[in-house]
Amino acid sequence: MKINCDMGEGYSIYKVCDDAEMMKQISVANVACGFHASDPVVMHETVKLAKANNVLVGAHPSFPDPQGFGRREMKIGREELRDLIIYQVSALKGFLDMYDMPLNHIKPHGALYGVAARDDETAHAVADVAEIFNTSLYGMANTGHERVYKERGVPFVAELYADLNYRGNGELIIARNPPKVTPEQVVSRCLKAVEQGVVDTVDGKDVKIDFDIICVHSDTPGAIEAARALKEALAS
Amino acid sequence: MKINCDMGEGYSIYKVCDDAEMMKQISVANVACGFHASDPVVMHETVKLAKANNVLVGAHPSFPDPQGFGRREMKIGREELRDLIIYQVSALKGFLDMYDMPLNHIKPHGALYGVAARDDETAHAVADVAEIFNTSLYGMANTGHERVYKERGVPFVAELYADLNYRGNGELIIARNPPKVTPEQVVSRCLKAVEQGVVDTVDGKDVKIDFDIICVHSDTPGAIEAARALKEALAS
Amino acid sequence: MKINCDMGEGYSIYKVCDDAEMMKQISVANVACGFHASDPVVMHETVKLAKANNVLVGAHPSFPDPQGFGRREMKIGREELRDLIIYQVSALKGFLDMYDMPLNHIKPHGALYGVAARDDETAHAVADVAEIFNTSLYGMANTGHERVYKERGVPFVAELYADLNYRGNGELIIARNPPKVTPEQVVSRCLKAVEQGVVDTVDGKDVKIDFDIICVHSDTPGAIEAARALKEALAS
Amino acid sequence: MKINCDMGEGYSIYKVCDDAEMMKQISVANVACGFHASDPVVMHETVKLAKANNVLVGAHPSFPDPQGFGRREMKIGREELRDLIIYQVSALKGFLDMYDMPLNHIKPHGALYGVAARDDETAHAVADVAEIFNTSLYGMANTGHERVYKERGVPFVAELYADLNYRGNGELIIARNPPKVTPEQVVSRCLKAVEQGVVDTVDGKDVKIDFDIICVHSDTPGAIEAARALKEALAS
Repeated sequence: MKINCDMGEGYSIYKVCDDAEMMKQISVANVACGFHASDPVVMHETVKLAKANNVLVGAHPSFPDPQGFGRREMKIGREELRDLIIYQVSALKGFLDMYDMPLNHIKPHGALYGVAARDDETAHAVADVAEIFNTSLYGMANTGHERVYKERGVPFVAELYADLNYRGNGELIIARNPPKVTPEQVVSRCLKAVEQGVVDTVDGKDVKIDFDIICVHSDTPGAIEAARALKEALAS
Repeated sequence: MKINCDMGEGYSIYKVCDDAEMMKQISVANVACGFHASDPVVMHETVKLAKANNVLVGAHPSFPDPQGFGRREMKIGREELRDLIIYQVSALKGFLDMYDMPLNHIKPHGALYGVAARDDETAHAVADVAEIFNTSLYGMANTGHERVYKERGVPFVAELYADLNYRGNGELIIARNPPKVTPEQVVSRCLKAVEQGVVDTVDGKDVKIDFDIICVHSDTPGAIEAARALKEALAS
Repeated sequence: MKINCDMGEGYSIYKVCDDAEMMKQISVANVACGFHASDPVVMHETVKLAKANNVLVGAHPSFPDPQGFGRREMKIGREELRDLIIYQVSALKGFLDMYDMPLNHIKPHGALYGVAARDDETAHAVADVAEIFNTSLYGMANTGHERVYKERGVPFVAELYADLNYRGNGELIIARNPPKVTPEQVVSRCLKAVEQGVVDTVDGKDVKIDFDIICVHSDTPGAIEAARALKEALAS
Repeated sequence: MKINCDMGEGYSIYKVCDDAEMMKQISVANVACGFHASDPVVMHETVKLAKANNVLVGAHPSFPDPQGFGRREMKIGREELRDLIIYQVSALKGFLDMYDMPLNHIKPHGALYGVAARDDETAHAVADVAEIFNTSLYGMANTGHERVYKERGVPFVAELYADLNYRGNGELIIARNPPKVTPEQVVSRCLKAVEQGVVDTVDGKDVKIDFDIICVHSDTPGAIEAARALKEALAS
């Protein structure tokens, strides 16, 4: 079971995480492309760091919303949204090409991820770009975006979220400021999901969950400790 | 001897400092206006926090350079630069008006501060705005901006930098990422400056310094501890 | 019957209209504040031009969406949106203060206008700002925003759109690129509305319309000719 | 003798030129990459238009300065500037890949072009990116950037400016708002340059000029008429 993490989410002088340390805990990095976080300097450093740690890199495009960290929904038509995503993925690809690294996948960020899960036009815009770059898409199982991606034959990788909470109906709770989690909570949730195929929810009951990979967030308070504990728990 | 600090320099989800804690250590806040850092939400919170702590608020306008944190020089003509600064100061003033707080002063940020110190056109653009808002300007003594501001009769407040290094010729060293300082270094430098009127330099000798107020930076590593120690040292 | 127009919607080297010529045709200007269009230089020039033509100035704030010209819906909570609008209105007010001009009103732009018409939280955010600046709001009659504004006691001015099309249910059709209109179409629509209180719709029937002022758009192809013809027709 | 033109310099709803018409007059397009002008939608449309007209496409990166249309000088270190340019060129390359079009060259825009001409660090940053993409650079002969590019072995293409004025010392005059030119002026200047190897200057004398290609600007008033006349004159 691999761990992926949203990386390169600093900007200007700002940092959200010790990326050098986080990179040691993960197998796959979803690298921000400048529309919700990151800038060309951060992107270059992040790709270089991924290369040094043998971490696979995917693009993490967003709605154009730096002030809202890409966590505010926007209503953008399919063709325009497709172009916004092509721009971001291409910009990242230039840095990958420099280090002879392939584009591993695309994972929409924040509100773009959430809107794609329930709005088919948005999911199609994302899938359009995956086809152009001939790559896979990360997302949540049992959602509209899984259906759209699969109908079109785009390879789909389902995620379990180690550090976000779920509702009883299986939906993910995405907050502007993610809640703090302890390494114990993360490990406990993920091991249960791996072993029993269920995840605990804020409504008190466990729900069935399908997933191929586990995701942690670099801007969660305590993220590195949680990722390290998770990596060790999965290895043993 | 008062302490001022550049405040409200977070953005989106990013923070550079525990502003609530820093606000307790200072008398005057220079609040970023959205062109190098800050956004409307951060500005509002910062003004509210200043009000609660009886801290005076000035505007901290910048070149339009969020990705460079306003630390990259730009060549902008006097009239255009004046308009860019009016926009920023006015935007902040709206939040001050909400809390019945006066605009205490204007202090240019980063590269704008540095360029104004040696380029008269830039200094005049800054002074134009101070006249429009009928307020004072913060800066460094024995520079071109002091000369321009004083020639025009704009009230001038000279700063000592507690956490930046000086060259032997009295110039300040402004780095993209400021060096870490210990509370002891800050206190020692400031007490010497207050008592003897000189500041130590990277060239090994002390140089004479004129100042009316001491400035600390919220993005310096260890900023709060340094500010707290300085506040206590000045009080005793 | 007065005519208002969205003005100062150029940016950088871009112009959407000969603002100097349009300013002669109107009584009220809604000036863009930098979030969907305009920049500090354009805002200054526009306010100066309004002053020279005895045109009243209101603020025309937007969602933060320059690339979409503020015509893409965004989902932003009430408090955050309120801060975004305060920032914009305040920035404009600084230029008005320079020319001893009052803030005449606030008129939300594009998608912000449209979302406020049907989402109460958004309408409340707009009304919060109108209360802070003690000013009136422009909008459409028989909408959610009229209801919210009036319930809170914010003075409301209802608009007729001279150059946009209406649906049979009275809704306005807002397109990214507005349709070209002839001066004859504009004059005919407005005179009918003034004289008979109805507006023609794309569904072929006329619907009743309540309004206090007529609005034209500066980015409509043929805008100046239409505004000039309308001004003359209303005068005679 | 080929003609190149800066293209795709619209943004949002703004246009600077009828790109579809201009594309018919030229052989090479320098396409803006979003930092001084253009956005993903405009870039896509421009690349598509170039493909349809058999026009070669190069990247036209800029300092990060949309409000100044990239015509304001910025002081940015070599490594950071290199990353900013990689990002822009890569973003464009994604659209070229979609249409199986090669990246023909890189031509820095506005102030970046001018600063590279006299500051070696800036020229090296540009050359770094040309090497990464294994492409050629456009510039002016007898400048610092020509020297730097040639020393490093980067293929160099020298431009004659059809619609800008030269000083007696051979320097180009770059204004924020370019002067209007007549087709006759453009044709006369270019034919003289082609036939006699000299260009007229604002100081009244002709100076020797070396060039491989002629450049026109899409934001010059009367640009299309001038380009059309030039194309015909060169053909005959």
